[in-house]
Amino acid sequence: MDGVFITFEGIEGAGKTTQSRILCEALTAEGFPCLLTSEPGGTPLGNMIKNILTNTQYNDMTPLAELFLFSASRAQHVECIIRPSLEEGKIVICDRYSDASIAYQSFGRGLPLNLVYETNSTASWNVRPDITFFVDVEPAKGLSRVSNRLQELEIPADRIEKENLEFFERVREGYHYVSREEPIRVRILDGNLGVQELHKIVLDIIHKELIKRKFKKGLLFNP
Amino acid sequence: MDGVFITFEGIEGAGKTTQSRILCEALTAEGFPCLLTSEPGGTPLGNMIKNILTNTQYNDMTPLAELFLFSASRAQHVECIIRPSLEEGKIVICDRYSDASIAYQSFGRGLPLNLVYETNSTASWNVRPDITFFVDVEPAKGLSRVSNRLQELEIPADRIEKENLEFFERVREGYHYVSREEPIRVRILDGNLGVQELHKIVLDIIHKELIKRKFKKGLLFNP
Repeated sequence: MDGVFITFEGIEGAGKTTQSRILCEALTAEGFPCLLTSEPGGTPLGNMIKNILTNTQYNDMTPLAELFLFSASRAQHVECIIRPSLEEGKIVICDRYSDASIAYQSFGRGLPLNLVYETNSTASWNVRPDITFFVDVEPAKGLSRVSNRLQELEIPADRIEKENLEFFERVREGYHYVSREEPIRVRILDGNLGVQELHKIVLDIIHKELIKRKFKKGLLFNP
Repeated sequence: MDGVFITFEGIEGAGKTTQSRILCEALTAEGFPCLLTSEPGGTPLGNMIKNILTNTQYNDMTPLAELFLFSASRAQHVECIIRPSLEEGKIVICDRYSDASIAYQSFGRGLPLNLVYETNSTASWNVRPDITFFVDVEPAKGLSRVSNRLQELEIPADRIEKENLEFFERVREGYHYVSREEPIRVRILDGNLGVQELHKIVLDIIHKELIKRKFKKGLLFNP
């Protein structure tokens, strides 16, 4: 596939949604065809599934049911949006993807690691990110950012945001596990840095990657 | 597990929902602790997922997303309802279960058979039916029954009922495949028979099974 697939990962309040957005804005301004999307969601079906996943009405949702719901959203997303966009040569920036299932459903919820890896591989049709940014932050700090944001917007915490600190400690551990397993694909970023400071680091890494790919994949890039 | 797990399978309009219901009524009247349930559904989460699966708004749903949605419903159903009821020694009667994924998502939609078998085995935590009744009927006949029922109730066909005859021919073939693979578990019933005639056959098979199990599993059965 001719495109480049970039994902952002991290716990709630790490800053990945902001970084995804401003990376997309910067690359679009530079003339790259860019698609910004997120999981769960990214399609009408995925958005409906997201409503279920975040709904506090389903507090008794089992970890396996949760994994399958994320997987349903991902399967639809990959087949209808991500793969076609990559085939058109776009840069696809996705706010959370398969690594989140490892971190949340395996490390967070306790499902066996191999089960989550296998389900991920099926749900994603083996479409894997070229680069993943894991924006790392202390869970206490991330959650306090989320809590401030929710207070500002006057909205209640969703089913996942309501989890306790220990849960997010395990999720963070999961992201570190993924980073150790695939240190070339997964770059750890310090989520304590300011938004613009982080953005510069991200943009720098992406520019280098695009220059490298210019030769390998013939992207229309003028450095 | 001390209970007995009975499932009914078949295409739309085969008569399995009616047979599930009257079997449960008969066994309950005989004093057996009986639970009647169905898939997709059987839990609040499952019912919400069923709403998505049947909603014609999601006509672009990919086969894999569909498989994962059925699996999410099943995982929740098995963990919260089916397994606990079987552990309590109940007779659980379920209108559709894992075989439906083989018939619909593999034979009907074209997903690889091994993928659907593996996903089934994960989603069901290997909780397998003791007896399955495949109520077999010509798709043209089944669909005409459905169409009459919908007209009577003045409701439109759902996303799956809207599929064409060829789709249900493939689904039926899938059920026959499953019956050939597991001829002891899966009993083929003639869906052209009258409701009471079919019920007599079903009840007879279940009675024999319960007598057999009285010795094996100590069920409180007085024949």
